[in-house]
Amino acid sequence: MSLLTIGTVAFDSIETPYGKVEKVIGGACTYISWSASYFMNDIHLVSIVGEDFPKDELAALEQRGVNLDGLEIVKGGKSFFWAGKYHNNMNSRDTLATDLNVLADFNPILPEKAKSCEYVMLGNLTPSIQAQVLDQLDGSQKLIALDTMNFWMDIAMDELKAVIARVDLLTINDEEARQLSGEHSLVQAAEIILAMGPKYLVIKKGEHGALMFFEGKMFFAPALPLAEVFDPTGAGDTFAGGMMGYLAMTDEISFENMKRALIAGSAMASYCVEDFSLNRLKTLDKAQVITRIEAFKKLMDFDFPLDF
Amino acid sequence: MSLLTIGTVAFDSIETPYGKVEKVIGGACTYISWSASYFMNDIHLVSIVGEDFPKDELAALEQRGVNLDGLEIVKGGKSFFWAGKYHNNMNSRDTLATDLNVLADFNPILPEKAKSCEYVMLGNLTPSIQAQVLDQLDGSQKLIALDTMNFWMDIAMDELKAVIARVDLLTINDEEARQLSGEHSLVQAAEIILAMGPKYLVIKKGEHGALMFFEGKMFFAPALPLAEVFDPTGAGDTFAGGMMGYLAMTDEISFENMKRALIAGSAMASYCVEDFSLNRLKTLDKAQVITRIEAFKKLMDFDFPLDF
Repeated sequence: MSLLTIGTVAFDSIETPYGKVEKVIGGACTYISWSASYFMNDIHLVSIVGEDFPKDELAALEQRGVNLDGLEIVKGGKSFFWAGKYHNNMNSRDTLATDLNVLADFNPILPEKAKSCEYVMLGNLTPSIQAQVLDQLDGSQKLIALDTMNFWMDIAMDELKAVIARVDLLTINDEEARQLSGEHSLVQAAEIILAMGPKYLVIKKGEHGALMFFEGKMFFAPALPLAEVFDPTGAGDTFAGGMMGYLAMTDEISFENMKRALIAGSAMASYCVEDFSLNRLKTLDKAQVITRIEAFKKLMDFDFPLDF
Repeated sequence: MSLLTIGTVAFDSIETPYGKVEKVIGGACTYISWSASYFMNDIHLVSIVGEDFPKDELAALEQRGVNLDGLEIVKGGKSFFWAGKYHNNMNSRDTLATDLNVLADFNPILPEKAKSCEYVMLGNLTPSIQAQVLDQLDGSQKLIALDTMNFWMDIAMDELKAVIARVDLLTINDEEARQLSGEHSLVQAAEIILAMGPKYLVIKKGEHGALMFFEGKMFFAPALPLAEVFDPTGAGDTFAGGMMGYLAMTDEISFENMKRALIAGSAMASYCVEDFSLNRLKTLDKAQVITRIEAFKKLMDFDFPLDF
């Protein structure tokens, strides 16, 4: 199956307690595509960059099976840039700069092939642009997922709710789930959010794992405890990419397969945070992905006879 | 097998966003004993109360198989009292009062039968008193567990480390693990703490579950997501009681059985928080305990074929 992914392709400058990097490759769409590429290789990327974006980075994506027909390269333009600094505990960060640059004029036009991708991952963007992408799809999609953030809840809640109503799977973090629903309990928040339209809700809790809700059922995927978390940037997008890549590869939409997709996403995210930028994601192979999925099996596996 | 439990038997006054209760039954030893009693009924409680402690509460414990020969009742004395108020998110609380009362003179003397209990749970207390209990044991124990808190790390770190070196299992929360080890990463913290003596370490993360470390292996038990958390008081002790009760019942000390014990403890804790004080714990039956353990199985169960 094929996967359409839309979102930012960008530069990041990042400071963590482990070091500092300037203008490295980032962006939701970049992380989603690299992560998904370990499961399948028919990926259509729709985004916008400036002429300053490195050609070899684009070539590397193409080598992973990522079709860039939907990537607009603006002559003389500058790519989206984000700078942030993580605090000591890595759980919070300050945004130091957000330069929209070419993203300010992003008007996504889907190439013909992208319109019929069975699986769609709408990365975090202005809700109206996410809606504009949905408008161009040919209606043959099997699963459409959407990621968003609190920023859009603050300034464009109505547009956001309108686009949430049109997707099958929503991924947000715990604080965003509380903001979107007005409920503190994630169980109650999930009930309210699922009533907004999506069939599946995945609540990301960072180092505390991810919770999936579907028709009154729950599944929990922990984050793998790591000796060192080097840089959390892109972990949520890497999670989404692994999840959607696994779903597109297996082409089965069921609660049982969604569970596996959550584990696949968590495995990819656990690699992502081990180095800055896409450094770790770029050096993986399938055997390493499988090893990490096995680590999750061990972390969660137990057998409990109930005849005591 | 038999379980010795030592710690406070007390009164609590608690305020949460759901309500307020005055001078209800509390104390680590009380929660531990009630929780363990759903798995086995040869429990020896060692603690101290004043004459003000309700006789019917003691009778209720005895009916659950709790031997109170080691409970000192101080004539004219007042029982330990704690008052606290939880903030809106239930993750933090303010202590409003801590009246030691008879606990200030607690000098535990183990009855003969208590000295040979195969399983021992040292609830949170002054480390020197926990050591005093260890000195009285007959050496036939199969598993000794210890719970403690940051307060003792602040004022009695050396005594605490000395007693930690003598136990098999340590239970602390994530912030305490960081304080005890000086490491932020829980994986690195666990390595340092296990080098202090215990074979097993359980790091409690409240609503984010619990992590167990043993000989380079990890197991994660999530907390059950609940629609309403009414009062988190006693959840950690209820967890420890369920864990130790299950171990004493099954009498098997292995990583596989410790996993089950973690789930049993998590199941009991998930009931504890559904009401104030011991209200919910007192109304359970075995079928309900099993139903809750099944809920954990469903929450964590997945199957992931690795031949993709």
